[in-house]
Amino acid sequence: MRVDGRQYNEIRPVEMTLGYIKHAEGSVYICVGDTKVICTASVEERVPPFLRGAGKGWVTAEYSMLPRATQSRTIRESSKGKVGGRTMEIQRLIGRSLRSVIQLEQLGERTLWLDCDVIQADGGTRTASITGAFVAATQALHKLIRSGMLDTMPITDYLAATSVGIVNGQPSLDLCYQEDSQAKVDMNVVMTGSGKYVEVQGTGEESPFSPEELNLLLELAKHGTEQLIAQQRAVLKEAGEWIGGGKRDGDNTVAMD
Amino acid sequence: MRVDGRQYNEIRPVEMTLGYIKHAEGSVYICVGDTKVICTASVEERVPPFLRGAGKGWVTAEYSMLPRATQSRTIRESSKGKVGGRTMEIQRLIGRSLRSVIQLEQLGERTLWLDCDVIQADGGTRTASITGAFVAATQALHKLIRSGMLDTMPITDYLAATSVGIVNGQPSLDLCYQEDSQAKVDMNVVMTGSGKYVEVQGTGEESPFSPEELNLLLELAKHGTEQLIAQQRAVLKEAGEWIGGGKRDGDNTVAMD
Amino acid sequence: MRVDGRQYNEIRPVEMTLGYIKHAEGSVYICVGDTKVICTASVEERVPPFLRGAGKGWVTAEYSMLPRATQSRTIRESSKGKVGGRTMEIQRLIGRSLRSVIQLEQLGERTLWLDCDVIQADGGTRTASITGAFVAATQALHKLIRSGMLDTMPITDYLAATSVGIVNGQPSLDLCYQEDSQAKVDMNVVMTGSGKYVEVQGTGEESPFSPEELNLLLELAKHGTEQLIAQQRAVLKEAGEWIGGGKRDGDNTVAMD
Amino acid sequence: MRVDGRQYNEIRPVEMTLGYIKHAEGSVYICVGDTKVICTASVEERVPPFLRGAGKGWVTAEYSMLPRATQSRTIRESSKGKVGGRTMEIQRLIGRSLRSVIQLEQLGERTLWLDCDVIQADGGTRTASITGAFVAATQALHKLIRSGMLDTMPITDYLAATSVGIVNGQPSLDLCYQEDSQAKVDMNVVMTGSGKYVEVQGTGEESPFSPEELNLLLELAKHGTEQLIAQQRAVLKEAGEWIGGGKRDGDNTVAMD
Amino acid sequence: MRVDGRQYNEIRPVEMTLGYIKHAEGSVYICVGDTKVICTASVEERVPPFLRGAGKGWVTAEYSMLPRATQSRTIRESSKGKVGGRTMEIQRLIGRSLRSVIQLEQLGERTLWLDCDVIQADGGTRTASITGAFVAATQALHKLIRSGMLDTMPITDYLAATSVGIVNGQPSLDLCYQEDSQAKVDMNVVMTGSGKYVEVQGTGEESPFSPEELNLLLELAKHGTEQLIAQQRAVLKEAGEWIGGGKRDGDNTVAMD
Amino acid sequence: MRVDGRQYNEIRPVEMTLGYIKHAEGSVYICVGDTKVICTASVEERVPPFLRGAGKGWVTAEYSMLPRATQSRTIRESSKGKVGGRTMEIQRLIGRSLRSVIQLEQLGERTLWLDCDVIQADGGTRTASITGAFVAATQALHKLIRSGMLDTMPITDYLAATSVGIVNGQPSLDLCYQEDSQAKVDMNVVMTGSGKYVEVQGTGEESPFSPEELNLLLELAKHGTEQLIAQQRAVLKEAGEWIGGGKRDGDNTVAMD
Repeated sequence: MRVDGRQYNEIRPVEMTLGYIKHAEGSVYICVGDTKVICTASVEERVPPFLRGAGKGWVTAEYSMLPRATQSRTIRESSKGKVGGRTMEIQRLIGRSLRSVIQLEQLGERTLWLDCDVIQADGGTRTASITGAFVAATQALHKLIRSGMLDTMPITDYLAATSVGIVNGQPSLDLCYQEDSQAKVDMNVVMTGSGKYVEVQGTGEESPFSPEELNLLLELAKHGTEQLIAQQRAVLKEAGEWIGGGKRDGDNTVAMD
Repeated sequence: MRVDGRQYNEIRPVEMTLGYIKHAEGSVYICVGDTKVICTASVEERVPPFLRGAGKGWVTAEYSMLPRATQSRTIRESSKGKVGGRTMEIQRLIGRSLRSVIQLEQLGERTLWLDCDVIQADGGTRTASITGAFVAATQALHKLIRSGMLDTMPITDYLAATSVGIVNGQPSLDLCYQEDSQAKVDMNVVMTGSGKYVEVQGTGEESPFSPEELNLLLELAKHGTEQLIAQQRAVLKEAGEWIGGGKRDGDNTVAMD
Repeated sequence: MRVDGRQYNEIRPVEMTLGYIKHAEGSVYICVGDTKVICTASVEERVPPFLRGAGKGWVTAEYSMLPRATQSRTIRESSKGKVGGRTMEIQRLIGRSLRSVIQLEQLGERTLWLDCDVIQADGGTRTASITGAFVAATQALHKLIRSGMLDTMPITDYLAATSVGIVNGQPSLDLCYQEDSQAKVDMNVVMTGSGKYVEVQGTGEESPFSPEELNLLLELAKHGTEQLIAQQRAVLKEAGEWIGGGKRDGDNTVAMD
Repeated sequence: MRVDGRQYNEIRPVEMTLGYIKHAEGSVYICVGDTKVICTASVEERVPPFLRGAGKGWVTAEYSMLPRATQSRTIRESSKGKVGGRTMEIQRLIGRSLRSVIQLEQLGERTLWLDCDVIQADGGTRTASITGAFVAATQALHKLIRSGMLDTMPITDYLAATSVGIVNGQPSLDLCYQEDSQAKVDMNVVMTGSGKYVEVQGTGEESPFSPEELNLLLELAKHGTEQLIAQQRAVLKEAGEWIGGGKRDGDNTVAMD
Repeated sequence: MRVDGRQYNEIRPVEMTLGYIKHAEGSVYICVGDTKVICTASVEERVPPFLRGAGKGWVTAEYSMLPRATQSRTIRESSKGKVGGRTMEIQRLIGRSLRSVIQLEQLGERTLWLDCDVIQADGGTRTASITGAFVAATQALHKLIRSGMLDTMPITDYLAATSVGIVNGQPSLDLCYQEDSQAKVDMNVVMTGSGKYVEVQGTGEESPFSPEELNLLLELAKHGTEQLIAQQRAVLKEAGEWIGGGKRDGDNTVAMD
Repeated sequence: MRVDGRQYNEIRPVEMTLGYIKHAEGSVYICVGDTKVICTASVEERVPPFLRGAGKGWVTAEYSMLPRATQSRTIRESSKGKVGGRTMEIQRLIGRSLRSVIQLEQLGERTLWLDCDVIQADGGTRTASITGAFVAATQALHKLIRSGMLDTMPITDYLAATSVGIVNGQPSLDLCYQEDSQAKVDMNVVMTGSGKYVEVQGTGEESPFSPEELNLLLELAKHGTEQLIAQQRAVLKEAGEWIGGGKRDGDNTVAMD
């Protein structure tokens, strides 16, 4: 039995509020248990220098935590004057993950900024950010389609992420903070709607892990991301923002809806 | 008639959700019209170097905006590697304002951190931050009293802030962003429950203003802060956190409740 | 009786040496009591990015103190690697104040840099900076007119600043450092030659203040800035740099000379 | 057939020169094909603040590339004034990996710094760094044992790393730069002498990958790290620095030699 | 004939105003032609970390230029967020030079800060800074002696600096800015009252120079520093601050006065 | 007798490995005793902003030390977030020195970057860097000539550097670290193949030095640089990279080969 009464293969309750921030092209307020993240998607009509003139777009992410998202107050990175290693690692992960399901060639010469700001942290903030950022990105891209700035939906598949780990010897799904801080092995897995891996990041700093343990954890991650994607699908559909719904030509429909 | 249909002396609808962040000693989610700010109060059991051994506490504030709180995306100060002048000015203002109604000698050798993070901006973010930070600070200090770490409530009076300005020639109360960007004169006023000024910051960059105009604006600000303080009182009372309620001796009661 | 023998409504002796720095388009060495500031005005033939192509100019200020302007040595901001909050606040104030009496449309696509460097500090450095920067700016703009780069004087009115405060219960004008450090209420007021307010910045961190006290302080500030402006007028006139003197068309004359 | 003529499951020639830097407690110059890294291990007799008084040690890593290690010159991070995200990610990976096989409790209150400086880069710099850092760390810790500062060897197992990826549809071992830049899937795997995973970091930014592909890649990584560990064993043994050789009590011997 | 009518071996007019800044322990306003520098000496009752407990003091310098000391405005180093290479080089030179004639053992565990701020630049700012800093340091150390904090004058000799160079083929003394910018060879020489070299920094970036040219330049530098030292002696004597005057024991007298 | 058994006028053994880094246009691994530096020369097809359109090139240098090049570990400048004063001074010296023998007009609108990275430090790292950078620069420029990008060799003379100093009263050539740390006088001299000075930097922080001592030191430096240049000549000749060898017209030959 887990600290919050869940089964080893059970995710926490998930809620997503679409359109949470009025100014943003796309936004969602995602809560995974007590982990709460505001994800916004902003469209900027230019690309970074290394892509200028390449005829394609860019997708990038930034991640941050409010100082009191954590149990004790964390110093702001703006006050320290630099972005820390953990933040950089996470925002690079979010950016890479989203790019894996967005065709940059179809995006045009624009940048999609995904901002993930953690309001309250209770484990799994980076995976909640990815799951939420996908929904915000979808909403923003639909807005581009509806306004005629894009013809085709550049998204190729659903995308969600979850964490898994070995806690007290038990492979477990979607760790909360207390479990995470006791886990011997900790893995973040990002998967697509068609069940492929985008990122597999497992670390056994406390204790190296065997191939068998790796397989059990991957199995749990698959189970978790399937449920998250089902929920993304429902939220987007209800809002009329489901993938495929807004696009004008047909070739992305089959896989996703 | 104003852009959102209000009278010249009417404030926007205000909502305050107490205890919004579970980790913080004090927290409030304050909405003033479409301006939305999360204010947290964190207690740290030490003081900055310049106060060590002085037998008193410190109150300080930090202010930030999510990148997409604004109409177009704003670059993060952590990415730029430094805190901008506007942010510094605002957080210094919040800190000074709160210190004016908190007796640092009664706080003990601890620091009260007030973090004001703007989730969505529509004018008046600094004044909403002050109004919210007062409520969060009150909740945090009550927690210290209830837990026996403090004997006396160090707060001496209510505190709220609002903006006023001259828009299209009309002195107006509580400007939204559209009004603020057209105002010739812009003033932020911080007042106490007993009707005294803590800060008066008026600027006529676009157009210098006369003593008569100054008086009209101060009158409106008084009207606005009185309503905000009435609402603070109601929210704190309902939550059993009204000033005076948690304290053990009696000498702060009269002025505030 | 005040620490330096002045009446409550008396300013300190003021001296302004025009053309103190040979390289600068405009410069003045202003001494207000023992507060000494070098103000230079530099003309740069371009504008910041946000104004490019807008057909108008920009006025901006920087403020700094020599390390030993203060009683004990202050660490340089260049060594710390960042400009502090107090400096930012002051230089933003100087810039806004000067812009209130300079018509940016008439300035052309150029930037007027106002550098205020405090050589020796004894209270009121920001207000001495504003009073001096106005004189340096006037000299620089006259130089542009004499050289044919400008047709019309873009300055619309005189501008000076002083500090007022409540010291030992007595509202007082033009505080020296010792008074400033004891004042319960502290206010900086920037006024024009026609008696209008450009900035009113009052703070009662130590002790909130009443509307009556506010009025007494504003009265003193008016008295002080009137004398400062009389002196600016005399210095500029003697040097043949009085406002209006160098301009070619006539519409700014009445208010200023 | 691969660009450099290797089989899909063949690693590049590996050379390790022990004791390359005379000042360092441990050092190795490791060449994996044309990738060349200087790894040093430095012992500092104190721990970072978060560990003070905890009675245990710390292991941390820093990674850098000479500006011309790369095909075109890379700007130094010292000139840019900040460490980039890629560097941070890599040095955090190296540190975590090494800590997984070093018992911090047995290290005493000291820090082991592992510096990995890439002299020439041709793919796989982070994995060569880990493989080399392990050898440098072993040499440094043996020095502590020989000098009587440590009683027990705190290393619990061998550690090596390699990269694998899918290049032109072919899962391949130990990618050189040209292969790496064409790979659809890219994975770094850190393994112990007993065949357990310490880190599995797979990314399919270009193209998500299936569970079957993941298994093939993990198989190759196992094959590669086994060969690297055999070579580490030989180098250390020849130098009299093999694990177990210098320790005074017996409980680490079995697993490693 | 030189641009300003001087002979090749003639220095510019020199003026030194002692005690220019009221707060500083020592200060001088030095003008060498149109080069004007404020030098202050500040005594701090502690030493940097690397000297703690070593029973001796430290002498260090900082150098800066006001933005409009130069012909066109220079950006502040505080705004750029870092001290530039030229500034670092100069302030290291000033510090080293002064330390060569101050016995750190006799200074006690305190730091002497020498701040050289260039108000107006016309060539030779670093050498004017050294010449002025020596006078300010002397005044500050005499103040320590007069107040009983020091028993012995720690200064062992006079110290002054000048620049020399080859301009239009002519070795010349004390270059002004126009000469400096045309010079093929440029040398700064710091000498003591007893005619020894403390620093010789010659650079022939434009054109390497011969041993004969080097000798001619050193000859001129000797001639220049002798005159500067004569003037330092006169200024200090007149103010009753000549070296030896304030000290209580006798062993430094001979060499200096 | 010196600590390492050398005569007072004897340099340490010197080795230069040309083409040490495969990616760089020019590179050398230079060892002067136990001081080891990797020097690379990189050609970039653009110039810094201040030279754009001026029809000439630029030569600049950067210098760094690996953290464990020194006896105890030195913190990386990238981690500190800024380049220190010593580093700046050295890289400015290297850049100036190389520019003195390279005709920027003949280089075309390109930048030659000289990177000097100290792998192991034992005194004289800056002079070894200059001596090595000259060889790397020559190789890079020959590559430009061979590829037809340059017609004429822009190098005008050989260039080498050495350190001299007074150790235990004895003027000595090419100081190792132990000598350097005991030297009363320390001088770095950069000379050309035709025996002219490019830089003379002597410092007597510990003890001012006489004109006679200066002459003895300059004599030793001449002796040392002559030997270094002979070795540069041999290395370049053997590799077919001797100066003059690759050029197409004739006017630089006489002085150099």
